Amino acid sequence: MPQQDPFEVRKLGTVSRPSPLPLSSEDGDQLFNFVDDSEKILFNTSLGEYSRSRSEGESLPAVEKAGPRRNIFFNPEETTAAIVTCGGLCPGINNVIRSLVMGLHYFYGVKEIIGIPYGYQGLAPDNPHPYRYLTPEKVRDIHQFGGTILGSSRGAQKVSDMVDTLVRLEVDMLFTIGGDGTLKGAEDIGKEIEKRGLKISVIGIPKTIDNDIDLIDKSFGFETSFDVASPIVRDAHNEAAGAFNGIAIVKLMGRDSGFIAASAAMSMPVVNFVLVPELPFQLEGEKGFLKLLEKRLKAKRHAVIVVAEGAGQHLFEEASAVQDASGNIKHRDIGILLKDRIGEHFKQQGTEVTIKYIDPSYIIRSAPANASDSIFCNRLAYQAVHGAMAGKTRFVVGLLHNQLVYLPISSVVNRRKKIDLEGEFWFAALQSTGQPFRMG
Amino acid sequence: MPQQDPFEVRKLGTVSRPSPLPLSSEDGDQLFNFVDDSEKILFNTSLGEYSRSRSEGESLPAVEKAGPRRNIFFNPEETTAAIVTCGGLCPGINNVIRSLVMGLHYFYGVKEIIGIPYGYQGLAPDNPHPYRYLTPEKVRDIHQFGGTILGSSRGAQKVSDMVDTLVRLEVDMLFTIGGDGTLKGAEDIGKEIEKRGLKISVIGIPKTIDNDIDLIDKSFGFETSFDVASPIVRDAHNEAAGAFNGIAIVKLMGRDSGFIAASAAMSMPVVNFVLVPELPFQLEGEKGFLKLLEKRLKAKRHAVIVVAEGAGQHLFEEASAVQDASGNIKHRDIGILLKDRIGEHFKQQGTEVTIKYIDPSYIIRSAPANASDSIFCNRLAYQAVHGAMAGKTRFVVGLLHNQLVYLPISSVVNRRKKIDLEGEFWFAALQSTGQPFRMG
Amino acid sequence: MPQQDPFEVRKLGTVSRPSPLPLSSEDGDQLFNFVDDSEKILFNTSLGEYSRSRSEGESLPAVEKAGPRRNIFFNPEETTAAIVTCGGLCPGINNVIRSLVMGLHYFYGVKEIIGIPYGYQGLAPDNPHPYRYLTPEKVRDIHQFGGTILGSSRGAQKVSDMVDTLVRLEVDMLFTIGGDGTLKGAEDIGKEIEKRGLKISVIGIPKTIDNDIDLIDKSFGFETSFDVASPIVRDAHNEAAGAFNGIAIVKLMGRDSGFIAASAAMSMPVVNFVLVPELPFQLEGEKGFLKLLEKRLKAKRHAVIVVAEGAGQHLFEEASAVQDASGNIKHRDIGILLKDRIGEHFKQQGTEVTIKYIDPSYIIRSAPANASDSIFCNRLAYQAVHGAMAGKTRFVVGLLHNQLVYLPISSVVNRRKKIDLEGEFWFAALQSTGQPFRMG
Amino acid sequence: MPQQDPFEVRKLGTVSRPSPLPLSSEDGDQLFNFVDDSEKILFNTSLGEYSRSRSEGESLPAVEKAGPRRNIFFNPEETTAAIVTCGGLCPGINNVIRSLVMGLHYFYGVKEIIGIPYGYQGLAPDNPHPYRYLTPEKVRDIHQFGGTILGSSRGAQKVSDMVDTLVRLEVDMLFTIGGDGTLKGAEDIGKEIEKRGLKISVIGIPKTIDNDIDLIDKSFGFETSFDVASPIVRDAHNEAAGAFNGIAIVKLMGRDSGFIAASAAMSMPVVNFVLVPELPFQLEGEKGFLKLLEKRLKAKRHAVIVVAEGAGQHLFEEASAVQDASGNIKHRDIGILLKDRIGEHFKQQGTEVTIKYIDPSYIIRSAPANASDSIFCNRLAYQAVHGAMAGKTRFVVGLLHNQLVYLPISSVVNRRKKIDLEGEFWFAALQSTGQPFRMG
Repeated sequence: MPQQDPFEVRKLGTVSRPSPLPLSSEDGDQLFNFVDDSEKILFNTSLGEYSRSRSEGESLPAVEKAGPRRNIFFNPEETTAAIVTCGGLCPGINNVIRSLVMGLHYFYGVKEIIGIPYGYQGLAPDNPHPYRYLTPEKVRDIHQFGGTILGSSRGAQKVSDMVDTLVRLEVDMLFTIGGDGTLKGAEDIGKEIEKRGLKISVIGIPKTIDNDIDLIDKSFGFETSFDVASPIVRDAHNEAAGAFNGIAIVKLMGRDSGFIAASAAMSMPVVNFVLVPELPFQLEGEKGFLKLLEKRLKAKRHAVIVVAEGAGQHLFEEASAVQDASGNIKHRDIGILLKDRIGEHFKQQGTEVTIKYIDPSYIIRSAPANASDSIFCNRLAYQAVHGAMAGKTRFVVGLLHNQLVYLPISSVVNRRKKIDLEGEFWFAALQSTGQPFRMG
Repeated sequence: MPQQDPFEVRKLGTVSRPSPLPLSSEDGDQLFNFVDDSEKILFNTSLGEYSRSRSEGESLPAVEKAGPRRNIFFNPEETTAAIVTCGGLCPGINNVIRSLVMGLHYFYGVKEIIGIPYGYQGLAPDNPHPYRYLTPEKVRDIHQFGGTILGSSRGAQKVSDMVDTLVRLEVDMLFTIGGDGTLKGAEDIGKEIEKRGLKISVIGIPKTIDNDIDLIDKSFGFETSFDVASPIVRDAHNEAAGAFNGIAIVKLMGRDSGFIAASAAMSMPVVNFVLVPELPFQLEGEKGFLKLLEKRLKAKRHAVIVVAEGAGQHLFEEASAVQDASGNIKHRDIGILLKDRIGEHFKQQGTEVTIKYIDPSYIIRSAPANASDSIFCNRLAYQAVHGAMAGKTRFVVGLLHNQLVYLPISSVVNRRKKIDLEGEFWFAALQSTGQPFRMG
Repeated sequence: MPQQDPFEVRKLGTVSRPSPLPLSSEDGDQLFNFVDDSEKILFNTSLGEYSRSRSEGESLPAVEKAGPRRNIFFNPEETTAAIVTCGGLCPGINNVIRSLVMGLHYFYGVKEIIGIPYGYQGLAPDNPHPYRYLTPEKVRDIHQFGGTILGSSRGAQKVSDMVDTLVRLEVDMLFTIGGDGTLKGAEDIGKEIEKRGLKISVIGIPKTIDNDIDLIDKSFGFETSFDVASPIVRDAHNEAAGAFNGIAIVKLMGRDSGFIAASAAMSMPVVNFVLVPELPFQLEGEKGFLKLLEKRLKAKRHAVIVVAEGAGQHLFEEASAVQDASGNIKHRDIGILLKDRIGEHFKQQGTEVTIKYIDPSYIIRSAPANASDSIFCNRLAYQAVHGAMAGKTRFVVGLLHNQLVYLPISSVVNRRKKIDLEGEFWFAALQSTGQPFRMG
Repeated sequence: MPQQDPFEVRKLGTVSRPSPLPLSSEDGDQLFNFVDDSEKILFNTSLGEYSRSRSEGESLPAVEKAGPRRNIFFNPEETTAAIVTCGGLCPGINNVIRSLVMGLHYFYGVKEIIGIPYGYQGLAPDNPHPYRYLTPEKVRDIHQFGGTILGSSRGAQKVSDMVDTLVRLEVDMLFTIGGDGTLKGAEDIGKEIEKRGLKISVIGIPKTIDNDIDLIDKSFGFETSFDVASPIVRDAHNEAAGAFNGIAIVKLMGRDSGFIAASAAMSMPVVNFVLVPELPFQLEGEKGFLKLLEKRLKAKRHAVIVVAEGAGQHLFEEASAVQDASGNIKHRDIGILLKDRIGEHFKQQGTEVTIKYIDPSYIIRSAPANASDSIFCNRLAYQAVHGAMAGKTRFVVGLLHNQLVYLPISSVVNRRKKIDLEGEFWFAALQSTGQPFRMG
């Protein structure tokens, strides 16, 4: 029995309607070529894996290239699209909305595009908020603003209710912009649609400022996040250096993955320590963080620490064990915990320090997309439109080895992408900060 | 007995050494003219006051114009200057340091310029930190960085100790860059110097990001503060509008005076409520803040609040009275208090709201000066140098009716400048936010 | 015969309708007070002038304070306002438009606000462009964009035609946003209105990025102009320093007045020479600019020059005289002329230099207003509305000694404001660049 | 005879000295692993190519993974490194210099690092400029500045002379930061070194703001280039929309390749036409650019054009042919040519248009690196150091499929990377602008 290809993208049915796009299928005519479903990108690019597969006579997994198909599934004139944005803010959401609308409207002639208000709540049966009919005119300038013009919400709604709403609104394709939870929801919606035998495409455009969606190179908004964080880190260094034994702690996003923290630290190399969820570290002990900090202060009289919100979660149990009376409630925040523990440490030593704690999370989340992300959002949205029109469903559009691909939602929601502590990215972060390769 | 002129600037003694500056004293030669001590600016510019003074035969108070004097007191070649920066960070400190060094070095030829480390602590007898000898080369690029290259500290040192240090270092002029407390310290140092019969000039360059130094138009760093706050407020609006019944609270600096909060609100007119220390307001009641917020949410489904750190101090007493058990410690911060009280209010009503609390204070304090402030810092520093070389002492340099003046330190430290609730500035803020003219 | 007061602001007639604004007239009630026409600001703040006037028994000129009057002239419900924007772009125009609309709508209840398209052309009888009816909803976000949503044009239209259009559109008050030419046009419209016995108020909000409107402290957009120029100058220095004998020339706006050039140079003190229209200078000769540049290059191997577009106009005649064949057409631009002359000079000397010429004018003109200017635009617009509602006409709103005032248009269009070469501003610029006090 | 592998990286000799880096060679120990020379990345990632190679029994080309090797060639204590920067400015040069110095100094303990002044000129025998000895202290802050602290120059020097200088300075490794010409020069230097039997490593870090180095994903500074261009394009739109029939032309870098122009257009989707060197287009004719522009103006009354400097070179011949008298000198600049031709076109039609021409090239080249590029520069520099210490020579470090690799210089200088008119990038640009898929 042949194994199921984990990267195979589902379709709603036979795709036979000629695309209205005036493209070509031949090379050399200086005209973009339609992409065929069979065009794929190798998932693994290492020569070793390639050689192994050859010697073992095994096929390497490959991922479908994104792009406009020669034939499409939906009749544009009768197509209704819907767009929903879920979860926390992330730079670029409005850029994606705008390019979905532009792509649907101008490339294919889809005129009915419904903006679902306030995330999945807007698909609930009792949704009190009006639906917004989106046109090029209405979205023309929104790319210059952070946030989401549709509003967002967190958390799930009953799947069958949401599908009922899609049916009621006569939606043919639902573009969901959200993170891991949202994509799982989209997958469930897709399954329910399949179960009912409906022909509604469900598309995911992964939105996670933490950059923790599995398999894909990066998600939109991530580059903006450390672009906005970078001058904040620079100026945190001013706060640290401005006081004798000054310590600045900058807490950045990253529940499970420290990409933002490590990137911000690398982009502004005034950071002496970067602490991420992936990194096991101890506060106490001869090789622990506090001793390292002590040495740094002795040498340079100030220190800058960048910490991801999900770093050092083991310390909370410690904290609650040790500090019975005062309670561990005030310590749920790793930034605050660090601030407190550092303060206590130096107080015990009789060393005067000045600690400045900076939490710019909302400032970063709500910023407009920078230029790189703006382009990336456009390209993601265009490809999402092409995939949807071709009748593909339950897929995300993402970047793999710098090329845009379609991946089944199921392939990316199994686990979070994390920093590989043995990989080049983290090694670069260590080289940039100068912190020891192990801590504790 | 004639009344003492409160605006008279003290001198160390007879000033008779010709200035080395190649300026002129005649109009029409297209060359800057030396400024005479007798050139003054009217303190009050209203026609009414002028008419009153005429009819009552009374002189109007006037303030000495800043500028290079034809004669100077110190011999540049033998002069040692010192610079000290005190208190919290504020954009522009390095710009002031740079222009003091450039002015002393290039205009007058003063070669000995000592950077005092870590504020007044660096003048303490047991100061362990090295003094830095400042040259044009060393300060050339510092204007591009926030913070202070000299380091700072808060709090006072013993005055006689500090004067001892000045004597030991053979300092002839001490430039102090700091706020109300620092200026009071400078005045005390100046008095002690006078008592000892020393010839050391003490100059204040008012540094208060809150813009709360009395009498003067504005202090350096203030314009940068709301320039940096403005996009943060813009994006806070994204956070608010991105959620159903979303409320964003931005806390800005301003212990006694709400200039930053009101300016930030005006500069980015997405703010619905601005709360400042000068404004009496109630949370509860039919005309109270919470009811107004309720109405706003009902109408628009989101709200943006900017609050100065010193606003609503009366609420803490309330809070501690009401909430005995949980303690008022978590409520020392008006932003947190507002967040909690708003949350409780809507919870009681059964209305779901999403509150985002943003505190960008350190991000603002540590930013580099914007273009306006950079110029302003240069001009302040140049004039401080000219005043010091002319042997003036115990004075600040400031802006009055858009002109640079010398004012006795004693005239500006008596009270903090506050927003006039009956003045044009606050009226403009009210017009910009649309909040009621009275609250509670 | 008593002399006409040059600062007296005209009114359309008796002003007796109570203002709808809920303000007060008493001090101490923490409520903004109506401003009375008799409240004035002294035009000259020098003590010397004051003393002279007293001894000579002469009245000092004074200027009317801006602000809401207790009584207004127009019935808001029946009032139609119009807004027109003329001339080149300048940061802040949209901020002014927005605050005019907000002020008219929310403070007074004026609901008919017409946006005139493309400057005075939109008031021509054959104007083909549609008028735009402006509402708070339509202008809500425009403050975040540079440019003008109404469009602009240069040049004049026939005055009687324009008044005909105002009559046809039943306009009661015309807000004109423009520079010297626009204000002269507004004054002419106002005179024609008076001649016809109409009751239409004409208001000017001076818009000149060059900051060259006479009498007033500054015009909107000016601060943004050098804020945007500042990093360009910083990076021009990178270009200069990046090459051996590298010379960067940055041309900035300023036809008659060098405020932008001098401010940009001061805000980013990497500039070695700033050349402004007010400054007489020679290229050749022992004390000429080229010799100074030579010395600079010898000492530091690079140089940064900021030149205002109107500087050195005398050089064009020279140029055309000397360079007969090649024509002076390519030399109409002082930046290009400088580049050519510098290149020739060093070529003759056999010295290799690299010259980079940077002209960021459109980049600056079209930028959005910075935070300071945003506030300033709001305040100007609010006061323009208050003055208009009070039936004042043929006036501008401006800043004098840091206070907002109403001035007759006639008082500000007589001559351009220029840098006083003997004043503190230029002296600060010289101190910042280190260039000689005289050149040539 | 086996074919030479075009991607094989040369070494100076046997590499057997253990690396001082405390890394590991096993997975699972949370410590970065040394990279082996045999670890490679497939050059081509398409499944089709993979399948073809398998069926044809052919090996796919692969590229060496960058990273620290277990053994190194040079003895760090006796190693002298040199760094040279050549050609035009590009954001990130100082970041690369800084990270080379940090990497050499802190990772390996190399203490002698010579900064070569003013490009290859600094390696000429008669170089008059002093060499700079670079230390961590000296380069600590340079990453915050655009330009190059070493200075640069264009053009080549005699290869044998340059090698003589390297020998004289006892240089063991030369890091060259430059574009196509610089890399060809580096290759020649490397060949001469080999001919002489010397053991000097020559490393290239490709610097081309145009992003036109062949094979690699992108070069440093490219992302910053359109990040800086993006708001300029946004505001150019303000200039266009601010005038009736307003046309803004923004000329951006790109001699042979239009990556910057197309990226800037996509990042700020207010652009109606983007013209790149790769695109064949005609001005005249029914499908020509001028007719398209005419239609755009008729529909929207303004237009924004972004043009790469190398676009439309065929038009110059046309121009010189047609316009004999006036000469083609003024037309060497495509921006100016476009401006002139557009002006003439509409003049002939009797249509009034306003054209604003904006050339921000130097502003972009001299800007500091943005956050993405800062990280990228660090990673490139670290890997360059690791490759150099391992005795590799005549190689560049680059990004391939998002991974850092070592490539022989010879493999990247054969031809320029260009936009594939049939690829996804250009298709996205067309979708973003809405311009026709063919022009003319």
